Amino acid sequence: MLVTLDPSLRKPLYVQIRDQIRDRILTGGLKPGDRMEPSRELAHHLGVHRTTVGNAYADLEAEGLVQGTVGRGTFVTPLAETLHTPRSMTRRPSHDLFWESFFPEEPRDDSLGRLMASSVEEGVISFAVAHGAEELTPPDLVRRAADAVLRREGGRLLQYGSTDGYLPLKVYLQTRLRRDGIPVELDEILVTHGCQQSLDLLRRTLISSGETVVCENPTYTGLWNVFESPGVRLIGVPVATEGLDLDALQALLEQTRVKLIFCSPNFQNPTGHTMPLAARKRLLELALRFQVPIVEDDVYGALRYRGRQVPPLKALDTAGLVIYLNSFSKVGFPGLRVGWIVASRQVIARLRWAKQRADLHTNLLGQAVLQELGRRGWLDKWIRKTCKAYEHKQGVLRHAIERHFPPQVRVSYAEGGMSVWVELPAWLDASELLVKARERRVMFAPARYFYFQNPKHNALRLCYTALPDDKIEKGVAILGEILKAAMRRAKKGRQISPAGASVALV
Amino acid sequence: MLVTLDPSLRKPLYVQIRDQIRDRILTGGLKPGDRMEPSRELAHHLGVHRTTVGNAYADLEAEGLVQGTVGRGTFVTPLAETLHTPRSMTRRPSHDLFWESFFPEEPRDDSLGRLMASSVEEGVISFAVAHGAEELTPPDLVRRAADAVLRREGGRLLQYGSTDGYLPLKVYLQTRLRRDGIPVELDEILVTHGCQQSLDLLRRTLISSGETVVCENPTYTGLWNVFESPGVRLIGVPVATEGLDLDALQALLEQTRVKLIFCSPNFQNPTGHTMPLAARKRLLELALRFQVPIVEDDVYGALRYRGRQVPPLKALDTAGLVIYLNSFSKVGFPGLRVGWIVASRQVIARLRWAKQRADLHTNLLGQAVLQELGRRGWLDKWIRKTCKAYEHKQGVLRHAIERHFPPQVRVSYAEGGMSVWVELPAWLDASELLVKARERRVMFAPARYFYFQNPKHNALRLCYTALPDDKIEKGVAILGEILKAAMRRAKKGRQISPAGASVALV
Repeated sequence: MLVTLDPSLRKPLYVQIRDQIRDRILTGGLKPGDRMEPSRELAHHLGVHRTTVGNAYADLEAEGLVQGTVGRGTFVTPLAETLHTPRSMTRRPSHDLFWESFFPEEPRDDSLGRLMASSVEEGVISFAVAHGAEELTPPDLVRRAADAVLRREGGRLLQYGSTDGYLPLKVYLQTRLRRDGIPVELDEILVTHGCQQSLDLLRRTLISSGETVVCENPTYTGLWNVFESPGVRLIGVPVATEGLDLDALQALLEQTRVKLIFCSPNFQNPTGHTMPLAARKRLLELALRFQVPIVEDDVYGALRYRGRQVPPLKALDTAGLVIYLNSFSKVGFPGLRVGWIVASRQVIARLRWAKQRADLHTNLLGQAVLQELGRRGWLDKWIRKTCKAYEHKQGVLRHAIERHFPPQVRVSYAEGGMSVWVELPAWLDASELLVKARERRVMFAPARYFYFQNPKHNALRLCYTALPDDKIEKGVAILGEILKAAMRRAKKGRQISPAGASVALV
Repeated sequence: MLVTLDPSLRKPLYVQIRDQIRDRILTGGLKPGDRMEPSRELAHHLGVHRTTVGNAYADLEAEGLVQGTVGRGTFVTPLAETLHTPRSMTRRPSHDLFWESFFPEEPRDDSLGRLMASSVEEGVISFAVAHGAEELTPPDLVRRAADAVLRREGGRLLQYGSTDGYLPLKVYLQTRLRRDGIPVELDEILVTHGCQQSLDLLRRTLISSGETVVCENPTYTGLWNVFESPGVRLIGVPVATEGLDLDALQALLEQTRVKLIFCSPNFQNPTGHTMPLAARKRLLELALRFQVPIVEDDVYGALRYRGRQVPPLKALDTAGLVIYLNSFSKVGFPGLRVGWIVASRQVIARLRWAKQRADLHTNLLGQAVLQELGRRGWLDKWIRKTCKAYEHKQGVLRHAIERHFPPQVRVSYAEGGMSVWVELPAWLDASELLVKARERRVMFAPARYFYFQNPKHNALRLCYTALPDDKIEKGVAILGEILKAAMRRAKKGRQISPAGASVALV
């Protein structure tokens, strides 16, 4: 195997090995099914410790590019073919040199992105991503709405629009927000290209270097992708069944000057937990007492299937401290990229300026289509239909889990949202479970992806909303088999090693 | 007049006066037509120098909120009514206090934004913004394309998409780029929400604090809105008839370590100047010699009405140093917010990560509609039709200017784009001309808005593409009258003061 090491580089040796092998796989030098040189031998050839090679192989395995089989060795997986990018990787080495010195650091390692990419492969049953079902999107309604708005508005929808948002959509959102108990003026709403952009605009506008931001841990990865930047201190507060742990938050606020608190009170991603009313009130009291604004992410709020709606923090916010985020993505329209921010006029004024610098304004066709769907009452009907379908899917999942999962596994079923949170016995690592599951073409997101600090390993998120019933059944049955096998091995392992050491799912 | 001054604030006194009066106007305390307290009297009441009040009034006049008439006084204009936001400005003063301490600095003053806003008022003939004509947008073609893609792609267009861009659009762009002499692989293209976002992603990805960026001066205001941030040094290079002044650039590169050069070789905004082939080659040589990447903004490139197409820098770039930006905005579809970046794979990899953090991906419906328009050949036909219409409009403008403008005014007519650049005699300030023009309901953008340093005052940009022929005629006739009157007064003034001092257009 052609790996050359340069100890003078700032790159760790295992990273050099990993990257050179990855390049060989992606450019076709190593093909699916090829056996990798055993780590002991490669280590010997390179004159490094075996662990160094082991670390490189482990990373490649986590990326899904190679896979180890006990007693047989490590092989290149079929995923390599999907990611194959032959020409451009081998072209124009001179540019590569120039740009390598331009960017001295490695590009960001997007292991979650790769996990997501491999989860959409043909034939894979993926519980990994919080997507809706394609059969549950209404292209015909959108087609009719697009037709209507282009007839009505004509060329105006193709011209430049207002940074604030398309006025008829803002008026529609105002009505909707008032219905949800959030009285709001038009200049307190800014339309964005979805919640990810809302987070990014908040980051630019509200947070400076040296400041501290508090958010739930675990949380949506896109949140800390935005806030994890040099000089910003991100502190995690645990999430319990009743949402953000308020005792922990209070202790933190008593010690530390916090600039902003992020919170998703409805069907928190990834745990699915919802804050009861009393907790919401206490959170607001804390915010008021310590004078810290709260960013409320409510993207899952509309997906309540059963139980009583709890008022959003923004509806309880008499002090104007809550910045409320929502979007049309989780209710069925992520491809249109339309979200909104509700906040005090002074905050919106700053966000508007940031939005103008970021991309001038949100696409008008998507905004007009959604306003039309809303105006005609189709949106509300659609959301009700979606909730019914998702509740049914959750039922199918629950039924399957009850039949197939071993009793040591605990599952929280939320009253809405897109996923359930699965807690494994403490000695079982969900990432290792994923290696086994991927072999059987089943995917999910292990808990560690959602923790930006102190990762928990023995949990995972199962999203059921994109899958047909039979796939949910089959996927859960496969996961159940893997879990039961792990339990059996653990039992045997514990008999041999009574200290109860962590047992790897080899 | 209820103005109270607090000398202990960090705000200058004239800003305190200005803001309190502006608030009174915007909340309806002062109404259109109301006469302002004469500056001498207000200064006396407040115990400040008359210039302090004069500065406040001048700012309000520049914002279009008040207007002075010789011998009669200063009055609130009808614009105040348009911007009127009564309730929210007066509500919840406690929030205002909280957020004022949260944001110790003033919100960004968006005087250009206000100028733009007032230029779309009913009955105003606006040469101010580089918009297309609404009658020249094809809502019917877009309607048919939207219908076709939603039938063909169904729910996929409503789901989450790839951060890279909608694959069929990328393939279409690849073909188009190759036709323009830019050979490109798919992983060298990133689709964005338009060129403003492309600039923003470049800023995040390529520029760190303490680094130096060079761009044309004057230039597109959105460019320096993005780059003007603490720690980034922005240096302007003048633009001559042959584009970026390369002698000045070379002198600069010899003295200073530059991280990036921005350049719009085709129909530069605002001057309309185009770089000839020889200059492009020399620019690339400089970039190579000093190892500085170039960002090429080609948004106006497709709007060439006549003359020979000059190859884009990217087509001449054998060294991989050019980052190429383009969009569908100037050819007729700004409301869809779709642009793209072409660059070396390593740059795209970083930009992709920034894009994911910024807003996950570009809206799919807009991308699919544009790909469909392209695939059917409608886009190219549309662009040809647009060029013909714009060339006609430029002809109408030129004819009118030749009849109405005094001979001291020099106008550059480009072979494409959306505007002409008008140079006035050195003693004439375009901003003062604008005050007169606005009185007669004609708007344009004075040169100073496009300079981020060393502003030139005796020039202006006239955009003709959004206006019907008769409005172009009428607007130019009014500007001509104002210009001629200024010339007459200047002549008289010069007779009195032979030193040739600057003459204000009162």
